[in-house]
Amino acid sequence: MIHIKDEERLDELHRKGYKIIQHPKKFCFGMDAILLSGFAEVTEEQKVLDLGTGTGIIPILLEAKTKGSRFIGLEIQKDSAEMAKRSVTLNGLDDKVSIIQGDIKEATKLFDPSSFDVVTSNPPYMNSGKGLTNDSTPKAIARHEILCSLEDVIKAAASLVKVSGSFYMVHRPHRLVDIMDLLRKYHLEPKRMRMVHPFIDKEPNMVLIQAIRRGKPMLKVDPPLIVYEEVGVYTDEIYDIYGMTRTD
Amino acid sequence: MIHIKDEERLDELHRKGYKIIQHPKKFCFGMDAILLSGFAEVTEEQKVLDLGTGTGIIPILLEAKTKGSRFIGLEIQKDSAEMAKRSVTLNGLDDKVSIIQGDIKEATKLFDPSSFDVVTSNPPYMNSGKGLTNDSTPKAIARHEILCSLEDVIKAAASLVKVSGSFYMVHRPHRLVDIMDLLRKYHLEPKRMRMVHPFIDKEPNMVLIQAIRRGKPMLKVDPPLIVYEEVGVYTDEIYDIYGMTRTD
Repeated sequence: MIHIKDEERLDELHRKGYKIIQHPKKFCFGMDAILLSGFAEVTEEQKVLDLGTGTGIIPILLEAKTKGSRFIGLEIQKDSAEMAKRSVTLNGLDDKVSIIQGDIKEATKLFDPSSFDVVTSNPPYMNSGKGLTNDSTPKAIARHEILCSLEDVIKAAASLVKVSGSFYMVHRPHRLVDIMDLLRKYHLEPKRMRMVHPFIDKEPNMVLIQAIRRGKPMLKVDPPLIVYEEVGVYTDEIYDIYGMTRTD
Repeated sequence: MIHIKDEERLDELHRKGYKIIQHPKKFCFGMDAILLSGFAEVTEEQKVLDLGTGTGIIPILLEAKTKGSRFIGLEIQKDSAEMAKRSVTLNGLDDKVSIIQGDIKEATKLFDPSSFDVVTSNPPYMNSGKGLTNDSTPKAIARHEILCSLEDVIKAAASLVKVSGSFYMVHRPHRLVDIMDLLRKYHLEPKRMRMVHPFIDKEPNMVLIQAIRRGKPMLKVDPPLIVYEEVGVYTDEIYDIYGMTRTD
């Protein structure tokens, strides 16, 4: 029996009956994690690492959606990693999904180099320029580059993914030039990109990127992913990524 | 009286009654040039240089649409430059628009450094890896990187535009990583980007980019620009950029 603590809640994932534990004041996933798990491609028997896994949403969803064999989530925050482990156990996934508590900056000491077919990350977006302070709440650590920078994430991905393997990331469009610059610096060539727009006539607020280690230059840009058809109504594609129907 | 040669034709520009001479077998502008002239911002008294001007479409349209004071088009191909000059004279623009025949790679010898407020370019897109051959037709030179590479264009723009001035370019999305890489290399920071999709559910086939010399990193990504509402019917925004109404 898995314990759901005070202030935690249990949410449906609309995939194989899986559920996930969240703590609204501390650790919750966003639509970005869901969209990244819809964008990433994992084929049979592949081994996947998620850098900064938070609630464990990405490895759990990828286990549900793909035929990959092993899914590992690395999370630095102790409480979040512990909560993610309970979600894994709750769904009976202990033999396929592992949550490891550790630092992305130390990831090359925790895992063998070039040992993953796919690496994913929904890293902190905000380049606040601040280090860790007493005010650094769990949410701030998940959202701001306090414990790791964009470069730390990309550097770790580049050494842990196999040559010709893929790194998938979701980030903010305003950082796109930095992202491409850093990906190339670490020989992760951006190969596919999709902008996510809340509405068709609005600026994108997320960008999904696939980079291939040692890939050849040639970027494929996808059609825009539009979130809302009208206020409060998702587009069919979003319902589909969420595994929901319009009546859910 | 301006002479229109055999096989040339005269087209309406839907701006101030301007017309342009084109040679369908040799030099024609595409929608990319029109969209770039809609994307570029030129304010009062600004001086503008267009690198690889072809028919002269971009300086002529920018003269029509903006309050800039001087518009110069640089074109390497003699016949194209001569034809563009006739279009300038035809529209009575000789005191504001100049077409200069010359090589982008020699542009820093033709113009003073940091002497333009705005530089624009609709350069050859195709990275064919071939040099000039006997088969290099005028169209091939305009479309392939035969006489200048993407880097040549960006390098020239970076030395001719003022600090804090803007470089506007249209290119193919699959070259986006190269574009951003080269822009940063020459201290032209990408600040605004817009993808152009033929239809809302299709991949983009053009990308419009504004880079600011010595600008701070922070990219603004615009809503997608959609060309067709349905087959054969432009969206309102495209009609507007063309200066046409639906009855034109």
